[in-house]
Amino acid sequence: MVDPANTVGLQVNPTPLLKDELDIVIPTIRNLDFLEMWRPFLQPYHLIIVQDGDPTKKIHVPEGYDYELYNRNDINRILGPKASCISFKDSACRCFGYMVSKKKYIFTIDDDCFVAKDPSGKAVNALEQHIKNLLCPSTPLFFNTLYDPYREGADFVRGYPFSLREGVTTAVSHGLWLNIPDYDAPTQLVKPKERNTRYVDAVMTIPKGTLFPMCGMNLAFDRDLIGPAMYFGLMGDGQPIGRYDDMWAGWCIKVICDHLGLGVKTGLPYIYHSKASNPFVNLKKEYKGIFWQEEIIPFFQNAKLSKEATTVQQCYIELSKMVKEKLSSLDPYFDKLADAMVTWIEAWDELNPPAAAAANGKA
Amino acid sequence: MVDPANTVGLQVNPTPLLKDELDIVIPTIRNLDFLEMWRPFLQPYHLIIVQDGDPTKKIHVPEGYDYELYNRNDINRILGPKASCISFKDSACRCFGYMVSKKKYIFTIDDDCFVAKDPSGKAVNALEQHIKNLLCPSTPLFFNTLYDPYREGADFVRGYPFSLREGVTTAVSHGLWLNIPDYDAPTQLVKPKERNTRYVDAVMTIPKGTLFPMCGMNLAFDRDLIGPAMYFGLMGDGQPIGRYDDMWAGWCIKVICDHLGLGVKTGLPYIYHSKASNPFVNLKKEYKGIFWQEEIIPFFQNAKLSKEATTVQQCYIELSKMVKEKLSSLDPYFDKLADAMVTWIEAWDELNPPAAAAANGKA
Repeated sequence: MVDPANTVGLQVNPTPLLKDELDIVIPTIRNLDFLEMWRPFLQPYHLIIVQDGDPTKKIHVPEGYDYELYNRNDINRILGPKASCISFKDSACRCFGYMVSKKKYIFTIDDDCFVAKDPSGKAVNALEQHIKNLLCPSTPLFFNTLYDPYREGADFVRGYPFSLREGVTTAVSHGLWLNIPDYDAPTQLVKPKERNTRYVDAVMTIPKGTLFPMCGMNLAFDRDLIGPAMYFGLMGDGQPIGRYDDMWAGWCIKVICDHLGLGVKTGLPYIYHSKASNPFVNLKKEYKGIFWQEEIIPFFQNAKLSKEATTVQQCYIELSKMVKEKLSSLDPYFDKLADAMVTWIEAWDELNPPAAAAANGKA
Repeated sequence: MVDPANTVGLQVNPTPLLKDELDIVIPTIRNLDFLEMWRPFLQPYHLIIVQDGDPTKKIHVPEGYDYELYNRNDINRILGPKASCISFKDSACRCFGYMVSKKKYIFTIDDDCFVAKDPSGKAVNALEQHIKNLLCPSTPLFFNTLYDPYREGADFVRGYPFSLREGVTTAVSHGLWLNIPDYDAPTQLVKPKERNTRYVDAVMTIPKGTLFPMCGMNLAFDRDLIGPAMYFGLMGDGQPIGRYDDMWAGWCIKVICDHLGLGVKTGLPYIYHSKASNPFVNLKKEYKGIFWQEEIIPFFQNAKLSKEATTVQQCYIELSKMVKEKLSSLDPYFDKLADAMVTWIEAWDELNPPAAAAANGKA
């Protein structure tokens, strides 16, 4: 008699989606044992590990994973003086991984994020959902009340303009977190025991003109489309602010995606976020951001890019000029940040030279 | 020994929320047997039934419900020549009920909508959820990735500006539908068997500046805040279009809510929509709307109300002028519709005279 379990075991796994077109970027200061739990979903993919803090420390990567690892010495060696744009002692250093990748897609995840379960108890393949989100269009120009219209069993509802039903290309997929929610220090302090247990089975497009707080914990994007804007700013060591790296990137990419007609999604997939960071430490990192954001957000809400800005790089340089002009009065830090934005683009273009054909105006 | 079932039966039910401040408006051409299933949730409330079609037909209302019923003769008698703004042979006639209500809140529901079940199998008290949605603020100015921040177990995430955390007053709560989704005729024709089985456990604020397709099947609103803009237009008998009544109202209320700083929510509660309408009949009603909306939506996306428009009535009259000016070229129908918008406001103000105190500028 055939053992059903064995029969299942004999099934050939299909090739993982985009296996050769996606890098997983992980910033870390510790051993990557969290990857054990992710093995069924992530092992086929290439990892780019950005080691933060002491470069002499040895990071253990579970066996069987294919990876490249960069510590601070590597970053300094590769970027030279331009390494100044990469943060130190802050997970913002992860954006170095985006820069050195040669793949079209990036998935970035924190090392305290584990596999979540959906309400049926099934393990969530977060990367697969991100890939689905990225490969199907977004609908930023009009709201669909039944959520993602491209999902099986769903569609555009009555009254949705037919001319908008092709949607736009998706550039960013922002995933969520069960268990420890991504709260700021004041909210952590006020609600130390709050856990997110609500699994909302939806993917949304964030409408054009609307900003959102982008968290870098569980995030995927199309590097070719938006990579040069995914700069996580100057945070951590020597900087007056931390924990705003992903927020900064989120404001920038949203303004640029809106300008270039690209889509940004949020919702599924969930990861299980295991460990709340220390709210007192967080408060120290965040407190300037908490009042600065009251001016930064209106700045981004009103930022208008010119028609001449048609590439991400051009948009980003325009944005850096506006930051210098409009935010430097808030704090000299923004003057430095605006310069770092330019350095970042220079470093990006150095490591990712435009193809000769494109440079020569050939097809 | 105590019978647990009896013990439960002895529990005193709390007074239903807003019992004396809310009317339920139901447009119908048939018997209201669907109310049997809603008895546990809706019986305490007052119903306003707007009978469409033949006024000599007798509508049966299940016993125990407190109601007032208006047929076409009543509408003509009450409004006189202004009755021309109320549609006939189309569920758009429901807005007459909004006008004659004297309550602060309206819940409107179609007579083919039944009680839905949540994923745990529990019957959904749709009205209770709508009331929750209306009584707690909206967040149209910045997107919260964990959905409704005011819900138990949720909050604003890191990076959400503190100055925006009080939100704005909610004016409209748009509920969704399990089973038969609210599709247009072409989608019904292409996917006759599609059923909505996905229960998304979320309430969202529709961001400022974003339009959405508002369905009138399962809808609640604050009549004091937005009532005069909830006009369902000229549809049905003698008109070139049908099935755009709620869409029209949705575009108008969203532009006005954005202008006045009010919130519009969508998501929970679900109702169970039992019966798909005939797609061939629907196509005949809709087809002009399907191409008109390609111009109407950009019109509403670009509609800017003046600073002088500080009441819903003023906003609505401004909008009617813009409709006349910008949409009449699309079809003479819009000239007539713009006039009807003005008539609607006149009729509204006649039936709802501003309180003497307010008129005299007193508190």
